[in-house]
Amino acid sequence: MHKSASGSTLGPGGLDLSQAFFKSIHSAAPPSPTKRHTKISVIGAGNVGMAIAQTILTQDLVDELVLIDAKPDKLRGEMLDLQHAAAFLPRTKIHASVDYAITVGSDLCIVTAGARQNPGESRLNLLQRNVALFKNIIPPLARHSPDTILMIVSNPVDVLTYISWKLSGFPSNRVIGAGTNLDSSRFRFLIADHLDVNAQDVQAYIVGEHGDSSVALWSSISIGGVPVLSFLEKQQIAYEKETLENIHKAVIESAYEVIRLKGYTSWAIGYSVANLARSVLRDQRKIHPVSVLAKGFYGIDGGEVFLSLPAQIGRGGVMGVTNIHLTDEEAQRLRDSAKTILEVQSQLGL
Amino acid sequence: MHKSASGSTLGPGGLDLSQAFFKSIHSAAPPSPTKRHTKISVIGAGNVGMAIAQTILTQDLVDELVLIDAKPDKLRGEMLDLQHAAAFLPRTKIHASVDYAITVGSDLCIVTAGARQNPGESRLNLLQRNVALFKNIIPPLARHSPDTILMIVSNPVDVLTYISWKLSGFPSNRVIGAGTNLDSSRFRFLIADHLDVNAQDVQAYIVGEHGDSSVALWSSISIGGVPVLSFLEKQQIAYEKETLENIHKAVIESAYEVIRLKGYTSWAIGYSVANLARSVLRDQRKIHPVSVLAKGFYGIDGGEVFLSLPAQIGRGGVMGVTNIHLTDEEAQRLRDSAKTILEVQSQLGL
Amino acid sequence: MHKSASGSTLGPGGLDLSQAFFKSIHSAAPPSPTKRHTKISVIGAGNVGMAIAQTILTQDLVDELVLIDAKPDKLRGEMLDLQHAAAFLPRTKIHASVDYAITVGSDLCIVTAGARQNPGESRLNLLQRNVALFKNIIPPLARHSPDTILMIVSNPVDVLTYISWKLSGFPSNRVIGAGTNLDSSRFRFLIADHLDVNAQDVQAYIVGEHGDSSVALWSSISIGGVPVLSFLEKQQIAYEKETLENIHKAVIESAYEVIRLKGYTSWAIGYSVANLARSVLRDQRKIHPVSVLAKGFYGIDGGEVFLSLPAQIGRGGVMGVTNIHLTDEEAQRLRDSAKTILEVQSQLGL
Amino acid sequence: MHKSASGSTLGPGGLDLSQAFFKSIHSAAPPSPTKRHTKISVIGAGNVGMAIAQTILTQDLVDELVLIDAKPDKLRGEMLDLQHAAAFLPRTKIHASVDYAITVGSDLCIVTAGARQNPGESRLNLLQRNVALFKNIIPPLARHSPDTILMIVSNPVDVLTYISWKLSGFPSNRVIGAGTNLDSSRFRFLIADHLDVNAQDVQAYIVGEHGDSSVALWSSISIGGVPVLSFLEKQQIAYEKETLENIHKAVIESAYEVIRLKGYTSWAIGYSVANLARSVLRDQRKIHPVSVLAKGFYGIDGGEVFLSLPAQIGRGGVMGVTNIHLTDEEAQRLRDSAKTILEVQSQLGL
Repeated sequence: MHKSASGSTLGPGGLDLSQAFFKSIHSAAPPSPTKRHTKISVIGAGNVGMAIAQTILTQDLVDELVLIDAKPDKLRGEMLDLQHAAAFLPRTKIHASVDYAITVGSDLCIVTAGARQNPGESRLNLLQRNVALFKNIIPPLARHSPDTILMIVSNPVDVLTYISWKLSGFPSNRVIGAGTNLDSSRFRFLIADHLDVNAQDVQAYIVGEHGDSSVALWSSISIGGVPVLSFLEKQQIAYEKETLENIHKAVIESAYEVIRLKGYTSWAIGYSVANLARSVLRDQRKIHPVSVLAKGFYGIDGGEVFLSLPAQIGRGGVMGVTNIHLTDEEAQRLRDSAKTILEVQSQLGL
Repeated sequence: MHKSASGSTLGPGGLDLSQAFFKSIHSAAPPSPTKRHTKISVIGAGNVGMAIAQTILTQDLVDELVLIDAKPDKLRGEMLDLQHAAAFLPRTKIHASVDYAITVGSDLCIVTAGARQNPGESRLNLLQRNVALFKNIIPPLARHSPDTILMIVSNPVDVLTYISWKLSGFPSNRVIGAGTNLDSSRFRFLIADHLDVNAQDVQAYIVGEHGDSSVALWSSISIGGVPVLSFLEKQQIAYEKETLENIHKAVIESAYEVIRLKGYTSWAIGYSVANLARSVLRDQRKIHPVSVLAKGFYGIDGGEVFLSLPAQIGRGGVMGVTNIHLTDEEAQRLRDSAKTILEVQSQLGL
Repeated sequence: MHKSASGSTLGPGGLDLSQAFFKSIHSAAPPSPTKRHTKISVIGAGNVGMAIAQTILTQDLVDELVLIDAKPDKLRGEMLDLQHAAAFLPRTKIHASVDYAITVGSDLCIVTAGARQNPGESRLNLLQRNVALFKNIIPPLARHSPDTILMIVSNPVDVLTYISWKLSGFPSNRVIGAGTNLDSSRFRFLIADHLDVNAQDVQAYIVGEHGDSSVALWSSISIGGVPVLSFLEKQQIAYEKETLENIHKAVIESAYEVIRLKGYTSWAIGYSVANLARSVLRDQRKIHPVSVLAKGFYGIDGGEVFLSLPAQIGRGGVMGVTNIHLTDEEAQRLRDSAKTILEVQSQLGL
Repeated sequence: MHKSASGSTLGPGGLDLSQAFFKSIHSAAPPSPTKRHTKISVIGAGNVGMAIAQTILTQDLVDELVLIDAKPDKLRGEMLDLQHAAAFLPRTKIHASVDYAITVGSDLCIVTAGARQNPGESRLNLLQRNVALFKNIIPPLARHSPDTILMIVSNPVDVLTYISWKLSGFPSNRVIGAGTNLDSSRFRFLIADHLDVNAQDVQAYIVGEHGDSSVALWSSISIGGVPVLSFLEKQQIAYEKETLENIHKAVIESAYEVIRLKGYTSWAIGYSVANLARSVLRDQRKIHPVSVLAKGFYGIDGGEVFLSLPAQIGRGGVMGVTNIHLTDEEAQRLRDSAKTILEVQSQLGL
């Protein structure tokens, strides 16, 4: 039960009321070492990490939740704030520590930690600092949980997912970047909003790089199973290309807009990653656009690169990539997206 | 997923569309043998077993649900009826078989199977037939899932829980009878109904034998943390003992009443057992009145007997028994309850 | 609370403990007449009606649940069985009566009542008896809840939805037949099972008559947003038409199979209708294949006929019908389906 | 659907795809004015307000969620961040505005806005600024939603709940302060942590002023229905009073500790208020320690004062106050708590 990382809350002294209150059952055997118990570790207790942790807790996805952060005060404050809600929640054990040993045996490790851009700092320099940071995060995670799934949320997510794969030594199916899962959700929301339908009825993907070079797959959008573009063609409706492009532009800008307005994004990425965590832990085998090792798909070659493709996710991580139809233009954009990321990687000299 | 016990639904022939649709991820490793995955087996696909199975499914308590019954047609019908709802449910694998091998590795086995009373059959004779039935159920369950928790729902629940303990060779903390958990729920409902409060705010136990000799613990009833009887004393309110006894009588009669009216009970026992299953699988450490090995508690001696006591339930089964205060009268009734059960057991010649 | 229809459970006599236990707040105003409170009435407490009622209860969709049936004993037994679970459930008021006055102010009325086929009885004769039955059901429902949505589950669902529309005098958007919502779920399950994907990622409709003349819309099936048939064409995969037809055949036969195996269907229809109830009560505006007034869609004319089309469902009932693309063959089958139903209706002489 | 407060997301121009996509059902009547639809407004989009809003959204408690804040940028950022998660959530309409007109028809208004203490500012001066703030908040809320329940979260909660009652002109049962609901949850967590039981099995109240003069009701603590203190007495266990006082002290200090460690509290108050919102909207009639008009209870007189007492909460707000037994010492402390608050109120010169 919710023991704090620093031990008993009540301090020394006093009789053990617990022994007075319960009488042990006679032959109570020690808990079996094979007992199943699910555990998620969240690395980074900032706005993104905490929104993910709290959503996972509210949705009751896991038996044990561990928080890791370099700042012990902030970390303990967040842990206590979650623990104080115990009476309103199903029983989840909540632990926190600066020491990665606490993550031992995690089913899923979600990495949200990242360096912040200094004023005037180049994007490359920032990335190099993040790579240095990940050298202190990924190897201990992999050591304490050699069977875990790694889910990378920190940005630039595609390169950092590649870095995490390299640092972990894991097979590629166990390293996933949150990628364009959230971009796709924003895309679905804007389309649903435009058409006044339920966002859950909209199937629409943004793939490729999580960022400005992302690719909206217009040719495969469907609503309630109706492919939208071919529907419009058949109805001989000349839907203005500009409207479609405006929706994609709105998706790309929406993250920037939220950051400009409130200083950071948190809630939507929290729900998005909790949604991925559910697909992994419950072996849901759902299809999500997430960052996976893309080499060999859709003509992507020239090097090992992670970017978002519609992938089937389950307990073992990435199970496969959907063989979605792309127009020539979409496929070309995707390959350009890959090239952009590979160039960044080459500058890192890894 | 959701493969039926009898293999593919679509029969032979045809191309494997799945391979065309997905491209496997490059280095996909085989699923780790240590992956956590929760599994419940329900023995007996009658009204009670199916209400339990369906409630567990709706509440999304488990990754895999297995049904066992001796009647293959009924069994397959129930399995298909649940599977057909897959699109409305989170992903739970549903299997069914007449062969206990399918239960392998269960975290929890819920036994609802039982012989029905023949016209003119003595209670003892019925019990002997049930013991014979359990000799075919418990040993294979224990063999295929040596670390499982056994939860017995069949009646007479206290004796059959004892029998299951003996037949399984399990430590007593891993054998639990559903006992008076439902009686206590009915008790709480009737008190809440009487006072117009939320039944979840009522703490009230019925303990002892599940049946006519059950014991209502009036001295420990509290509502929203207010002990009711001592409250009445302090307010100098002479609450008529008759009213209290009527409520207990109504509880005992309510099962008979439902059986008389609709022919059997199903929904309430379904919710009750799903509630216990949650406490076990999620390691909730909640206190439930369930049938446990009672020897040594509250002066119960004279033999090994299972009856309901307020017990703390978690992943390892029964963790302890609450040291609840009983009045002398309540303690005496509890010991009488134990004696009644022991006498039945002695007649079985086990 | 959960007062039974027949008044206090405990009978007369005794002091009002409630008044002793609570002190009323000073200025407690009477509850406002405009307070929102959601209410569902289920007509028919058989296997289907009870599976619907129990699933709605477990999923906590409503504040008040009312059961209506002609058999008072069975009805009271089912009501008590649900009420006894109060301690395990969120607070839902559960009432039951043979008198339709209890349905007053329902947001949604779900009709599952229906006559059973007598040995040797013609289908037409059975239908005539059902029409007679509905004359006793629909007008009192409409009178007590003039703003309600009517959802018809009884079979033959399309004709009985038409009958209910006529008998209610409601605008057609407030009369919905459960139609092929469940057939479509079975269809999605079988496709998901075949491809090992999550059934929730499969978009696939069966439309038209709920029954042997139903139409599977192969041209619009998509999985994770990928249109399956056009995908296969583009990959130049010759998928055997026989496999597709086998899946549709399996759907049609699956209801018969479950009935043959277990005697009736219950769980899947329960989940299916609870799913529709959620779309209505929470104004989800999701697209479901349900039986709606089809005249004027897809070239259907020749009379007023209800059959299943992909319709958007919200708080006001049916909001619109999706303008889905049909192949010529699919459209022709749909019109044939309409003709079949119209012929039956004409025989009724309404 | 999730229209933003500032109108369509996509701007002008373009054909209305919605009309092409759906065909209206024939006789679609306009939505009935009596349709039920639940609405919560949260005033203040800071850390506390947003944790409440997000928890309410995740728990799917309401059909429409409105955010009000004086800072339009922050407000729009928070609204968009929640809306972007639409694809992962049940359908809830999310609106935001600086204009209170948007709160019209709310079932529940949750006020979290409050002035922050300036360096060197006296507590009284801060309170006076908060009173001034509430004069701009409460009257427009009351005007736009004359039947709403007001739930005050801002501190000092007891005085501000009194102020809100006065400013609203509402009957006292419709004005509730979040009070010691969270303190009691922390209390239950610490006791559960100490005894290794589930916090949901612990019944324990902290009442009185939300703050340093709060009163822990040791005499009524029960665990799984067992009154702890009387149990210890009967077992002749001399439980050190110091241990009990340490637990209460830990509760009082825990809010300060979280603020010191992370700068503010958010998650636990979010869950706590969402829990109260559920009791109100679902008419759960549960007992919560919340701030209510206390005059006349437990010998509290001398003026109109709000402080926390165990109150039954439902759709109509506060339904009654539990007649809990207090020791003389507890009752005296409660009256002292009342006196402290009354003194503060008298200084305000209201």
